[in-house]
Amino acid sequence: MLMSERNVQRPYEELNKLLDEKMRSIKYKVAVVSGKGGVGKSFLTASMAVLAAQTGKKVGIVDADVHGPSIPKSLGISNPQITVGPNGIEPVTGPLNIKLISTQLFLPQDDLPLIWRGPLKGRLIAEFLSSVNWGVLDYLFIDLPPGTGDEALSIAQYVKGLTGALIVTIPTSLSKLVVKKAVRFCGELQIPIIGVVENMKEFICPSNNIAYPIFPGNAGKELAEELSINYLGSIPLDPRVSECMDVGVPFVLKYPDSPAAISLKKLASEVMELVEGSS
Amino acid sequence: MLMSERNVQRPYEELNKLLDEKMRSIKYKVAVVSGKGGVGKSFLTASMAVLAAQTGKKVGIVDADVHGPSIPKSLGISNPQITVGPNGIEPVTGPLNIKLISTQLFLPQDDLPLIWRGPLKGRLIAEFLSSVNWGVLDYLFIDLPPGTGDEALSIAQYVKGLTGALIVTIPTSLSKLVVKKAVRFCGELQIPIIGVVENMKEFICPSNNIAYPIFPGNAGKELAEELSINYLGSIPLDPRVSECMDVGVPFVLKYPDSPAAISLKKLASEVMELVEGSS
Repeated sequence: MLMSERNVQRPYEELNKLLDEKMRSIKYKVAVVSGKGGVGKSFLTASMAVLAAQTGKKVGIVDADVHGPSIPKSLGISNPQITVGPNGIEPVTGPLNIKLISTQLFLPQDDLPLIWRGPLKGRLIAEFLSSVNWGVLDYLFIDLPPGTGDEALSIAQYVKGLTGALIVTIPTSLSKLVVKKAVRFCGELQIPIIGVVENMKEFICPSNNIAYPIFPGNAGKELAEELSINYLGSIPLDPRVSECMDVGVPFVLKYPDSPAAISLKKLASEVMELVEGSS
Repeated sequence: MLMSERNVQRPYEELNKLLDEKMRSIKYKVAVVSGKGGVGKSFLTASMAVLAAQTGKKVGIVDADVHGPSIPKSLGISNPQITVGPNGIEPVTGPLNIKLISTQLFLPQDDLPLIWRGPLKGRLIAEFLSSVNWGVLDYLFIDLPPGTGDEALSIAQYVKGLTGALIVTIPTSLSKLVVKKAVRFCGELQIPIIGVVENMKEFICPSNNIAYPIFPGNAGKELAEELSINYLGSIPLDPRVSECMDVGVPFVLKYPDSPAAISLKKLASEVMELVEGSS
């Protein structure tokens, strides 16, 4: 159904040509998907991008969460200058030369909502992918909003040659239920699954070093087993993650030796290995 | 714009008549809104419903999060029998006779995703409100998904005489940014704001009783001040909340003397006072 939608609609022809062109010069396109909100998709997207850039890769991010865009703030990008050049809209540049596009960058005031129904949101995402001057990239990470609705469908439809989806969950079984839907969604749309990562695993109390599971459960491992997908490990719950996102400094750069950053580095190299090995 | 949409479209005429009728026999309609995912909307919705029902009120819940419905599982409702009677679809009944409707109840398997674009989701919510035999209720709580898109717009459009919105945030300033959008959204659509509650405030370490702000910040109070809305207090982060939701037992019934339950009871009576006092 999506295939026919893609091909028959006349007004999309030009868009499709552009999409093809732009996506061709991006080697790996990785969607960060969860289904559930508040599990740390944006944090993981930004961390993956920073860690890939640290290894010398050329990296871009599409913040596809049009209602709750978090990436610009978390990467310290405020009051950016969006410019339009001969090759389209210029993405803004974050730390380590990461290129970024987000609805947040187009709002006159950062606390204004985007009150849009689905079809418009789909179109916006198509514009992000086709009208932005991404140039040649090794990696484009796409931060999806919660749910299996318009934004996710549009990414599946418009990202030509999507490499795969990185699935994010928190440990609870309620999260597992919702995230499982997202995995099934990827299956329906033939999006390959890179693997599942379990975020906010446990909080290590700084005064007694005991690990407390604030969001108890084993959703990551269970999802991996039940759906036969890769389990990519877990990330502990570190309050400094929120602190860093709030002040716009990448956590993996500020606290590179913390257990959470070490887990993230392991995750990033595993994801890159899986992605690059499969191509 | 919404007003004209509401009135001119012929196919909606019958629906509108039904909506009017059904909503008239429900005294207070409270939407639980956040903008951001994973802040505990479903937990708060379920807790408010249980606490209102405990005071003898007749209570219903619409789980409007069509992609990530959490209410049935969190209230222990699995494998329900949906029946259709002379007065429409019968909602299922949860603890304390709470009436509930959710997309989850219509899925043949609970891990299947609803891969729907916006317009269909809006229509589904209209059906929930108009075709369900709610009967006479004191309270209908509506659990909205993250974002200011189709589902939220549909609730604003279809719930005749929406009493108001209860805004939920976690303490971080990133959450504040996204939740602020939701408050502005309510303003645009002339939905009264009941107030803002700050969830997941801090974790009290069970071994040393020290309070750790896992998600640091003061988004609740700051939002209240900056937007001149009521601050309704905060709820501590208790790992037993997730545990209870995972096994389907209302936390406020299982741990009524816990600090989180005490905060919730205070919140519920304040919300009910505000809502009933303003009518």
